[in-house]
Order: sequence, then C-alpha cells, then structure tokens
Amino acid sequence: MIEQRQVTLNDIDTPALVLDKGRLKSNIEKLNTRLAASSVDLRPHVKTSKCIDVVRLALEGGRGGITVSTLKEAEYFLEYGITDILYAVGIAPGKLDRVFRLQSKGADICLILDSADVAGKVARRAQELRTTFPVLIEIDSDGHRAGLRTDDPEIIAIGKILHESAGTELRGVMTHAGESYNCDSIDAICKLAEQERNAVVEAAEALKAAGLPCHVVSAGSTPTAMFCKDHSGLTEVRAGVYMFEDLFQANLGVCGIQDIALTVACSVISHQPRRNLIITDAGALALSKDRSTASQENDCGYGLVCSLEDSKPIADLYVRGANQEHGLVTRRSSKIDFSRFPIGSKLRILPNHACLTAASYSEYHVVDGSIEVIDKWKRINGW
Amino acid sequence: MIEQRQVTLNDIDTPALVLDKGRLKSNIEKLNTRLAASSVDLRPHVKTSKCIDVVRLALEGGRGGITVSTLKEAEYFLEYGITDILYAVGIAPGKLDRVFRLQSKGADICLILDSADVAGKVARRAQELRTTFPVLIEIDSDGHRAGLRTDDPEIIAIGKILHESAGTELRGVMTHAGESYNCDSIDAICKLAEQERNAVVEAAEALKAAGLPCHVVSAGSTPTAMFCKDHSGLTEVRAGVYMFEDLFQANLGVCGIQDIALTVACSVISHQPRRNLIITDAGALALSKDRSTASQENDCGYGLVCSLEDSKPIADLYVRGANQEHGLVTRRSSKIDFSRFPIGSKLRILPNHACLTAASYSEYHVVDGSIEVIDKWKRINGW
Repeated sequence: MIEQRQVTLNDIDTPALVLDKGRLKSNIEKLNTRLAASSVDLRPHVKTSKCIDVVRLALEGGRGGITVSTLKEAEYFLEYGITDILYAVGIAPGKLDRVFRLQSKGADICLILDSADVAGKVARRAQELRTTFPVLIEIDSDGHRAGLRTDDPEIIAIGKILHESAGTELRGVMTHAGESYNCDSIDAICKLAEQERNAVVEAAEALKAAGLPCHVVSAGSTPTAMFCKDHSGLTEVRAGVYMFEDLFQANLGVCGIQDIALTVACSVISHQPRRNLIITDAGALALSKDRSTASQENDCGYGLVCSLEDSKPIADLYVRGANQEHGLVTRRSSKIDFSRFPIGSKLRILPNHACLTAASYSEYHVVDGSIEVIDKWKRINGW
Repeated sequence: MIEQRQVTLNDIDTPALVLDKGRLKSNIEKLNTRLAASSVDLRPHVKTSKCIDVVRLALEGGRGGITVSTLKEAEYFLEYGITDILYAVGIAPGKLDRVFRLQSKGADICLILDSADVAGKVARRAQELRTTFPVLIEIDSDGHRAGLRTDDPEIIAIGKILHESAGTELRGVMTHAGESYNCDSIDAICKLAEQERNAVVEAAEALKAAGLPCHVVSAGSTPTAMFCKDHSGLTEVRAGVYMFEDLFQANLGVCGIQDIALTVACSVISHQPRRNLIITDAGALALSKDRSTASQENDCGYGLVCSLEDSKPIADLYVRGANQEHGLVTRRSSKIDFSRFPIGSKLRILPNHACLTAASYSEYHVVDGSIEVIDKWKRINGW
C-alpha cells in the first residue's frame, strides 16, 4: 500500500483562502448556545460563506431556514434542498420573474420591501404569474440604510395592500441593525439590540392592531444577535459573519482574534529593508480593499499577519498597503527581522471583513488547527 | 420570419458589468497613437479586463506580447494562443512548477525578481526541471513597492547569476512607476515618467557595462505610458487600465469622464427621502470597496451615478456608502428628486477603480453608445 502524502498549506498555490473548521464549528456553537435559552429561531445569513458545507454546519439542529443577499445564493442553496429562504435585500420589481422561477422549483422564498408602490407592483406581477409572493415589510430601526420608521403610516398602507391582494402574503416585519457595526462597546451593542427589537416589535404590534397578520418578526446582525438579552416579541434573528468572524468583529468585542476562522495564505515575494517592508502576493484582490477597521481604535490596515502554522499574529506585522496583486507588510514600531521571512515563505493574513475577502475566491482550503488541508469546499460568487 | 427582440440594459439582471465597446476602442487607439511615433512596443497589461475579447482589440497591430499579474491569467490567455507573456509580479519559487507547465504548453513566459537569493533558487529549480526561465530584474524607480534601486550592487550580482546559470536567461530589466497614481498634475506625471525611464535605462546600462546582456528595458503604468515624452533606451511600455479608464484616472487627468468604458448597471431598491438617500443593489461587492479617489481633490465616494441611457453623470449624485449588497446614493448639495428614480428603475455607476470593480463579475455586457446589449464577453477571476 502506498501512503498518500498529506497536503499542507505549504503545498498550495497562493493567494488562497483558508478556513479553520474547528474555529468555524466553535463560532457556530457559541451563537447557538446563546440563543438556545430563548424561544427565538436563528436564520443564518449565507452571504458570508456562500458555501453549502459551511451552511450545513450552521443549520445543524435549527429549523432549516436561511437568509440570502442575492438571488444567485437562493438558486445555489435551493439546489442543495434548502427551501426556506428570506431574500433580505429590498426587491426590485424586475427581479420577480427570477423569484417566480425559484418558487417553481420548490422555494418558499420571502421578499422584503419598504414602499406601497412596490407592494402594488409585486401584487400585480404575482397575479399575472398566477403565484403568491410572501413578503416582510422592512423596518428602519437605526437609520442605517433601508426600511420605514415605526411611526411611518406607510407601514399600515403596505400591510393592507399585501394582505388584501391575492398575489401577496403579508408574513410580517424585519429589520437589520447595521449601526451595530459602529458601536464602541458591548454595552452600546446591547442597547442597540434592544432598540432593534423595540422597533420591529412595535411595527408588528401596529400591524396587528390594524387587524393585519404578522407571523414573522425578524431582526438581526451578528453583533446584536450575539448580545441581545431580551427576545420578547421576536420570532427569529439573522446573523452571518459570526461563523467566520474577522478583525472588525474582534475590534467590536464580538469575538477574540483567536476565534477568526478565515485567513488568506500568501507568499513573500520581495524584501525592502530600507523601507522596512515585506511584499507578499496577497494584495487588494486577495484581501479586498475593505478598510472598515480604519474607523475603529485598533486600525488593522488591510489585515494582520500570522504565522502559517498556528495562525497567530506575528509581533505587530500588518498589511499597510494593497495594490492589485501586492500586499505591503510592515511593523508599526520596530525593524522587521527579514531572515525570519525568506522570499518564498508563506504567511497567513487575518481579514478585516470576512464577507468581502472571501468573495474573491471560488473555494476554501479547510484545515483544523494545523496546516494539513483536510478538505476543499467550493463557494459561489456573483449575482 | 420572427424578428428577435433586441436585449437592452433594461432587460438584464442587476448588478451587472457594462462595457462600452466604442469607448474601449477609442481608449486603445489613443494610447496606440501616442506610442506610434516612438520605437517603443506596447505590452498591454491584461489584469484589468481578464478577457480575451478585450485583449484581442488591444493587441491589434501590436507585437502580441502581454503582461499578466497572475499565473491564472497566463494560463487563460495561453489557451487563446497568446504565448509572449511577462508575469509582472515577483516570482515566489514555489510557483516555478506551474510556470514550467505553462512553458510545456508553449508559453514564452518571462519572470521578474529582485533578489540574488531568489535568482539562485530559480536557476536551481530550472536545472532540476531541465528548462530555462527567462527573467527580468525588477527595478525600483520611485519607492512605490518592489524592486532594487539603481545604485544597488545586487542588480549586477543577480545579473551574473542569471546570465551564468544554465537554467536562467537574463533578458533585461523592468520597473513600474506606481507612484504616478499619486501625482497631482500632468506635469508631475511627465516628470515621474522621465524618472521611471531614467531608472530602468540606468540599470540596463549598468548591466551592459558589466558585460551582461539586457535586451528588454520595460517600464510602465497607465499614467506614465500616456504622458511619457521620451522613450530613449526603453524597448517596451506596459499599461492596463487605459483600456477601460475609471474615475481615478479621470481625476489624474489621464482621461475624461466621458472616456470611461466600464460602468455597473444597478436597480433602485429603496427611497429614504428623510435622509436624502436612494438605495441601489450595487453595493460593496458590485462596486468594490476601493476608495482611491478619497485621496484626490474630487472624491467620488464609491462611484458617480449616471443615467442608464447615455452613461452621463446625473447632477451630483454619487455613491456615499456601500454595504455588501446595498449602495447608498445621495447628492452633495441639494435634495434628490425621487420621482425621477422610481424603485425598480435602473442607473449606471462609474467606478473608482476599474480593475477592482470588474473583478467581482464573470462577464461584460457589451454596449456601443446605446442601451442595446450587442454581446456578452466572459472574463476570468481568481488565481
């Protein structure tokens, strides 16, 4: 018998996306445990991973519903038998025929909208297609982006259109406290979680008071899902990046650096001792140009540099700049010991924003606490 | 005979990448015309488009050589018969076997490096593989990222290793004046182009003075290629983004807004009149998080908003913020007339940085001055 040589991160082409399965499972378990005590369901957001292998782990023990950010995600996950889908981006009427095709293939896909005009258009197109579109009304709980404020009379107007039209089913309300990303403490996240819950529950109560149905009361973001203490009135929470975590979430206090499951493996390609720079092949496409940590106290540049072996940050090495295929790595305080990082040696980079970094890749190299590559998981991209 | 209905930008799913063929051809012609008077060859960089249809237009009338930023680009373009390839990112020795496979399929692929240690490793691996790797020495002309300064004795040391080893062929020198992106006037670009030329020509002369061959003297960036007045001593220039152009290049003065060939078609999905915001489905993935224009006098946010029909900017509408699948559009000065942009209507966004915006898409919707989609061109991504 010939023993098959084990593939490690030393053997793979760079740049490459590396996913630590142990950390992934532990992150999933952490949120599941927090929510287990409540009566609220978790509807994982699949926009971070876009990968059936990851989402299967996230759905273990759950009700099986997912949140998507694109219809392509809906199509992909439906192929794997996931039918309970919330498309959590405001529906543009031009996309309804594609939604109808998903329904025809067995999807129970729920839409969101925040305008009476669109509600009417959705209802009319549904009747032309002889279908029914389930809909949640989007509520603005924090001024972050879309949705209606709880005091907006349009909520009831939309509710009536959706409830009274043959082509639409008013399922309920949803909100996303995106401002949780701008909180500077756990206490602030807890307060925003309560604000998020209050807003969407208030909207649900207003619909019910108007004699309208409201079975679904959906809220969520990774920070508020993690620190929400009171789920009264909510039926589900949504979260996505909690599975992978990233430097932005670590800076928020949602996780520790050691919880981040996603890294980018790269190779050293040049030394610039005069400028105290190591250049790697993980640039703007490999890491993304996301600079979200720039607004936080601990600005991580384009990512923190870790050893290939244990994925632990090396001293204060970070990615200072990123051209398309070049990453510029330096230290904040002192000189780099270049002999530790010969050209051709490999490193791993912790990303600022896992959702955006992962989006340049078509697969994950799966490891579990070591450099052995135990699996490759495909992911999708695009629309 | 049934007349086939013409597909327009109104029919396509959003977000989508739109490429104007007329503008593309005109941009290509502009640089070709500028360089026609000189004896210098153009070696187009294919990292912007990653698309054979675009690159065929760029190569018309040229010598047929291209520049790539990834080995995947090399593999893709080789499949279409392009064999003369410069891989313009410092070679990591771990990638040599993949380069060898390209050679085995007929590629004349030239590498770059800036270290004697790597030169030795490349030479040794070549001998193990019984091949010869052609190499250019990377010169640092402006402190932008990689390469050796012209006064560095390592240039000659590398030259000797490459020339004397059976496994390597010293072809010459190359540099990239990336600092041209930080110039604030055409005059400054012209000066940097001269600095770039001086540096790489000086390195070439030093090699020749040491009795070493140096047939290739390669320089380039879109700004310096466009405004370089004196090509003495250069054998080729490289440029990539000139084919598409973008807001960053327009701000630099390399092109006009009306020359930008690449836009992102998107749909309006929400109105937020209280906050003077239109929300579209072109967010951080559709546009990229590139904020390069933030360092320029005319900060364009995440892009400028144009009408679908003629791709001309609408008043002062721009993308203020970008979440994963949400673009937040506002005006700088006054109130948006929301009735002009109903939910479901479509717009086009001019990108900050064409190379990064295009990288989220697998195809271009090709138009030519109207909204009629005349073709679809595939592109590749990843590594």
